[in-house]
Amino acid sequence: MQVRRLSILGVGLLGGSIGLAARSILSDCHVVGYGHRKATLDRALEIGAIDEAAGELEAAVLDADLVILCTPVGMFSEILRTIAGKLKAGAIVTDVGSTKRSVVAEAARHLPKGAHFVGSHPMAGSEKRGVEFARTDLLAGALCILTPDGSTDAKALAAVEEFWRTLGMHTTRMTPAEHDAALAGVSHLPHAVAAALVAMQRPEALKLCGKGFLDATRIAGGDGGLWRDIFIDNADQVRAALGELREMLAKFETLLDPEKGEELRAWLDEAAKAREALVRERLREEE
Amino acid sequence: MQVRRLSILGVGLLGGSIGLAARSILSDCHVVGYGHRKATLDRALEIGAIDEAAGELEAAVLDADLVILCTPVGMFSEILRTIAGKLKAGAIVTDVGSTKRSVVAEAARHLPKGAHFVGSHPMAGSEKRGVEFARTDLLAGALCILTPDGSTDAKALAAVEEFWRTLGMHTTRMTPAEHDAALAGVSHLPHAVAAALVAMQRPEALKLCGKGFLDATRIAGGDGGLWRDIFIDNADQVRAALGELREMLAKFETLLDPEKGEELRAWLDEAAKAREALVRERLREEE
Repeated sequence: MQVRRLSILGVGLLGGSIGLAARSILSDCHVVGYGHRKATLDRALEIGAIDEAAGELEAAVLDADLVILCTPVGMFSEILRTIAGKLKAGAIVTDVGSTKRSVVAEAARHLPKGAHFVGSHPMAGSEKRGVEFARTDLLAGALCILTPDGSTDAKALAAVEEFWRTLGMHTTRMTPAEHDAALAGVSHLPHAVAAALVAMQRPEALKLCGKGFLDATRIAGGDGGLWRDIFIDNADQVRAALGELREMLAKFETLLDPEKGEELRAWLDEAAKAREALVRERLREEE
Repeated sequence: MQVRRLSILGVGLLGGSIGLAARSILSDCHVVGYGHRKATLDRALEIGAIDEAAGELEAAVLDADLVILCTPVGMFSEILRTIAGKLKAGAIVTDVGSTKRSVVAEAARHLPKGAHFVGSHPMAGSEKRGVEFARTDLLAGALCILTPDGSTDAKALAAVEEFWRTLGMHTTRMTPAEHDAALAGVSHLPHAVAAALVAMQRPEALKLCGKGFLDATRIAGGDGGLWRDIFIDNADQVRAALGELREMLAKFETLLDPEKGEELRAWLDEAAKAREALVRERLREEE
């Protein structure tokens, strides 16, 4: 697929970075950005993240080859309903959401036969927010998870995969359910735990926190509205992950016993080693 | 107090850094380092962390004005017993342990009348370990908590406070019990949680972890032996902090409900704001 007209719905950190990368890497691609705040669209035009601003969804998706939903997850359903009748035949729609079961189901429900939906989760970003932090290289080298299900069009899947790869991403595939279960554990739950670790502290204890505490809770610095959408959309899997964490902490608590010192040490060393292996793997990937 | 002879028992990252700083900042101070591995002592001599190496505790503390326990917390009791009869009259003993009730009690039990103990917790370090990572400026600008109790000698307390300040640290005072309760929350529990977050993951999910997960679990990369000692020594307070985290996570779980979206957002935003305030405060301190 050649993307001649790309529609980015929501021009924040991620949407803006996709626009910057597409305009820099794809030849002959016109990028239209949709947003509900004029100031954001003006800024996106100014930094070159989009070629054209649209204040209405209908205008934003008109004639688009590829439409990418880049708003918070909670707005996807309404956007899909609104754009459904405005897509050209053969248009492909994807998204950048952190949860995948709901958007895949909503797309199947709302989009017309001539349009194809492929779920994507580009794992790039930061706790920063807004188009002013957008960077051409935000996506480069990061992983994008694609979540086809039984009804996904094979050509559309290949096209979306190619799109992310052209922007420098690695890609992998899993089902929407596999995605949501895995991300609940490695991303959503850690965010909630970081927030809980901050929320539980008394002010006088918080004054004593060191660099370790600040690192461990950095992810709690994200935008509350974005994360509310993710938690509520993926509530069942977040609950399941929370159950697994509770079990692990209960196990840790049984090891708080001078007679279990060696077992406690082994448990701690094993976690340290598993994390060390991850860091090494990540460094190798970056080489 | 002029420290003419400083005895560092355990020449690892922290002990080595104290030696480097003392030799660079204090004039006329002879630094003796004790360790049970000759290779470590040789390396400490080589990098200039100590003037003299001692393979025996008795020789290490002979004639020392100030003795600092820098081994893992679990060895403090035996070391105090061993050095008790070898300290000169008026000697001051302190430590760098991450727990304070037990070492203060053990010192009161074992040290002779003529020697004074003052508990210290210099909050500097990293997940790295060993004298090879020692740095002259590791302590500079960091906080040192001193933990006097009703029986602490006022002059010895002032002298130890002055010692850490001379090495560039800020100091604060609290009771051993206050220290152990606060640190269980801001340091010990977050370490256990980070280890549990790693330990609970399935290998295929771990492959999807991003920078956020690696940051959130960085503290789990520490040495298992050191941390086993801390957890077992402070088990009651770690259990109490774990109880508070459980309550906070239970509250979070009740908010995983579309009807509680605004409450969930407020909870997340509040944690993000509290952390942001901490980071700003820290930056101000570093200016």
